Amino acid sequence: MSRVSIYDTTLRDGSQGEGVNFSLQDKLLLTKRLDEIGVEYIEGGYPLSNPKDFEYFQAVRGLDLKHAKVCAFGMTRRKNAPAETDTCLKALLDAHTPVVTIVGKTWDFHVTEVLGTTLDENCAMIADSVQYCKAQGREVFYDAEHFFDGYRANPEYALRTLKAAAGAGAAAVILCDTNGGTMPERVAEVVAIVTRALPCEVGIHCHNDCELAVANSLAAVRAGATQVQGTMNGIGERCGNVDLISVIANLAMKYKYDVLKPGSLTRLTETSRYAYELANMNARNGQPFVGHSAFAHKGGMHTHAVAKDPSTYEHITPEAVGNERRILVSELSGHSTILSKTAKYQMNHDKALTTKILHAVQDLENVGYEFEAAEASFDLLVRKVAKDHKPWQVDKSLTLYKPWFERISYRVNIEARANGTPITEGTVRLKVAGVVEHTASEGDGPVNALDGALRKALVRFYPRLEEMQLVDYKVRVVNPKAGTAAKVRVVIESRDGTDVWGTVGVSENIIEASWLALCDAIEFKLFKDVERDQK
Amino acid sequence: MSRVSIYDTTLRDGSQGEGVNFSLQDKLLLTKRLDEIGVEYIEGGYPLSNPKDFEYFQAVRGLDLKHAKVCAFGMTRRKNAPAETDTCLKALLDAHTPVVTIVGKTWDFHVTEVLGTTLDENCAMIADSVQYCKAQGREVFYDAEHFFDGYRANPEYALRTLKAAAGAGAAAVILCDTNGGTMPERVAEVVAIVTRALPCEVGIHCHNDCELAVANSLAAVRAGATQVQGTMNGIGERCGNVDLISVIANLAMKYKYDVLKPGSLTRLTETSRYAYELANMNARNGQPFVGHSAFAHKGGMHTHAVAKDPSTYEHITPEAVGNERRILVSELSGHSTILSKTAKYQMNHDKALTTKILHAVQDLENVGYEFEAAEASFDLLVRKVAKDHKPWQVDKSLTLYKPWFERISYRVNIEARANGTPITEGTVRLKVAGVVEHTASEGDGPVNALDGALRKALVRFYPRLEEMQLVDYKVRVVNPKAGTAAKVRVVIESRDGTDVWGTVGVSENIIEASWLALCDAIEFKLFKDVERDQK
Repeated sequence: MSRVSIYDTTLRDGSQGEGVNFSLQDKLLLTKRLDEIGVEYIEGGYPLSNPKDFEYFQAVRGLDLKHAKVCAFGMTRRKNAPAETDTCLKALLDAHTPVVTIVGKTWDFHVTEVLGTTLDENCAMIADSVQYCKAQGREVFYDAEHFFDGYRANPEYALRTLKAAAGAGAAAVILCDTNGGTMPERVAEVVAIVTRALPCEVGIHCHNDCELAVANSLAAVRAGATQVQGTMNGIGERCGNVDLISVIANLAMKYKYDVLKPGSLTRLTETSRYAYELANMNARNGQPFVGHSAFAHKGGMHTHAVAKDPSTYEHITPEAVGNERRILVSELSGHSTILSKTAKYQMNHDKALTTKILHAVQDLENVGYEFEAAEASFDLLVRKVAKDHKPWQVDKSLTLYKPWFERISYRVNIEARANGTPITEGTVRLKVAGVVEHTASEGDGPVNALDGALRKALVRFYPRLEEMQLVDYKVRVVNPKAGTAAKVRVVIESRDGTDVWGTVGVSENIIEASWLALCDAIEFKLFKDVERDQK
Repeated sequence: MSRVSIYDTTLRDGSQGEGVNFSLQDKLLLTKRLDEIGVEYIEGGYPLSNPKDFEYFQAVRGLDLKHAKVCAFGMTRRKNAPAETDTCLKALLDAHTPVVTIVGKTWDFHVTEVLGTTLDENCAMIADSVQYCKAQGREVFYDAEHFFDGYRANPEYALRTLKAAAGAGAAAVILCDTNGGTMPERVAEVVAIVTRALPCEVGIHCHNDCELAVANSLAAVRAGATQVQGTMNGIGERCGNVDLISVIANLAMKYKYDVLKPGSLTRLTETSRYAYELANMNARNGQPFVGHSAFAHKGGMHTHAVAKDPSTYEHITPEAVGNERRILVSELSGHSTILSKTAKYQMNHDKALTTKILHAVQDLENVGYEFEAAEASFDLLVRKVAKDHKPWQVDKSLTLYKPWFERISYRVNIEARANGTPITEGTVRLKVAGVVEHTASEGDGPVNALDGALRKALVRFYPRLEEMQLVDYKVRVVNPKAGTAAKVRVVIESRDGTDVWGTVGVSENIIEASWLALCDAIEFKLFKDVERDQK
């Protein structure tokens, strides 16, 4: 079983996609998740380009990654100047990553016209940059931009640029179909030539402009490439980069290559959805392998046959990629999902309880909830359902739900004059441990004001809430057709010294949705601390 | 230049897609449009399956089609009964189409287990059905369901079913990858064997479960297939059928096959969007060739290079498929981006003005604005900067900025009790045309309440605001580190009868950010209408 390395560039090339914008926290969360499923290389950004990428490279060193090597991306040195004084290369090295990926020019026309230098100097720029970074102890990958177009224009020169990189010590050269216009048989032909001509590993980097990025990546691997670059869900500029989800599933299941780590295939669906949530994008229902509709059967003939034997209309079992079959109108979560989500609570034996949880989840999904990025809200839901399900009390480590406080009322008032910042005041009236607390707080906005008033009321009783802070806040309209009267889903990410957790609230009123997510965040923190203290 | 026939099954197999539902009128409109661009075969439905399909076949005879032959779809005769008395075949013939397409079983396992008959009888069912329809004067296509899976299980028998169809007079046999699980090189290999073994034409019918439907269809054509079946935009069950848009563009532009009719390629984008409209589906921005983002450029390096020479980041010219290039105003904006964005205002000669606009954009981006999805706010910004830039007055068609109303104050109040929906009231005090308007509105949430109060105040002065509605509302935190006190960016999408436009607002207060985006949306509508009326 040959090994193929996965190189994820969601955080760099993916963020070039229209409307894609990761916060620093998003970038770190995605890095952790990709590491967990066994992605080998994670390209974190372009350190020279903006301060957010710079901060990322500082913060990512604090993560305890098990599999992945973080890569910093940058360009070859400037023309006619030494590598040692190049600002871009300096920024690359200052990122302190184990891997640096250097992109350079292949196409003779670009070298002379866009770069404005000689063909020789371009090769020297490539070789010097690779050599310099390698001498500083980095594993160096060389991304050959526009490789297939350059090779068509001048095959000899295109190969020469690769040899410059390989000769200078690049661990791999990556052939980029930057414009996404190359056909699969051509990719296979050129990759075969390059792998024969070079002493190092060869990778492939495809874009989807002809809807052939997956086919091109597979063709390259079959022709000898050992690294595939792409993004989660294929996000990226124009029509996107290749979708690594489809690449991974096809390589592993159709061609039996060794990809990721054992057991990771069944996490593809949740990983895909997590990446969508972080990018604040809507998932694509028809996405191969992991889409909500990927194993949905509507045609009467089909559903009947699938009930008889799923292989009649399914090329793989949905469970193999962590997805699920959907038949008729059951648009929602299935039993298997709930089982796998609640596995940690050791309730597998209790079919009646998992069924109750499933129904609770389905009811909430029907009104717009999504638990993909809100595991803390799901956790609270499990506690709530389990509390009312008397016979179950196996896992002593799970504290059943109890309310930590009761809301009596809240009020928010926002007032603005002709110009300038509005004044916002929130008041809450809670019952905590039998006592009525009535507090108020100003805030930068309504959610901030409510959060302030809530904490003021609670912190006297639960001092560890001081440790907790909100790190992200996202709003998505659930039924966009209704405009400002639509239902909204608020997802809040919170953090304390040890954990990050997501909660969700849904309402037609954004303030109420925020309130629900805020309360879940606080309650999860309180349960979590109690259980940790018991250990 | 070899000819490849396009067989569109949007109305039959496409309508199996989740959420897809064509009215009779939609079906007729799409038929007309497909005929206009030169599609050869249009599969209109399954006459036995439902009354709408039956009505379609009656109505479609009234259309004056220039190129297309309409096809009716149905199954082979039932087992152990003559074709002459078969209800399904009768319904097929009663559709009175020039072509009938008959689907039958290839896979020995399905014949014995699902169909419950003998391998010989299945071949007789195929042959009888084809022969009977042909004897009634129809051109007959035979769709071999599960062909690639059946061929893997029992190649000899799979070929025998095709020969039964060809021997009975089928004009073409179509190899279906029904489950979408076959890899491109396998498709090519099997198609080559089949074309050598059969006297008739061979077609291909792919599904996209492995994200390889386009690659598989192209591989089949290169191996000898002369007909491609698929759907507009790839709609269809599970992950969809192959997207004919991509197939057509690749066949014509990359392989120089003769497809559709001369001049049709430039209509691909409008045809794709028309099909989305009819199916009441949202277009996919990243769709190859025809997506809104397919030729959108965001990265600074990219936009600079594209401005110099589009071929640096485009594999074809967008105009070739009726699409257009878009330069996104993003955090990586430079002068070239602003120049190309403002080209329509004819201010290229005025360097000082574009510099002022660039600075205004950069200042706003620094505090969290993004204009990528907010072209209307960018438009207002250009008007505002241009107004203060005295020397420039070249393009008379651009109305310089003037405020349509002034805000004196607004207030929003949200109150909630222990449970249930909060009550929300918004009040606004505006000065409009010298008059002070003070109005109030309840709403489902604070933005809805403000929107209601704003419209109430303005509609008396600007009645065309009635035409406008909000269609989407998105919120992102700009500096997530600050949690609920972070700055938020609100993006609103609005629509009237003719246009869709995006606006943006940024503030630490979500209500203020929403207010800004709402006001921009209203002002853009008012400017837009004035300018259109002047024309």
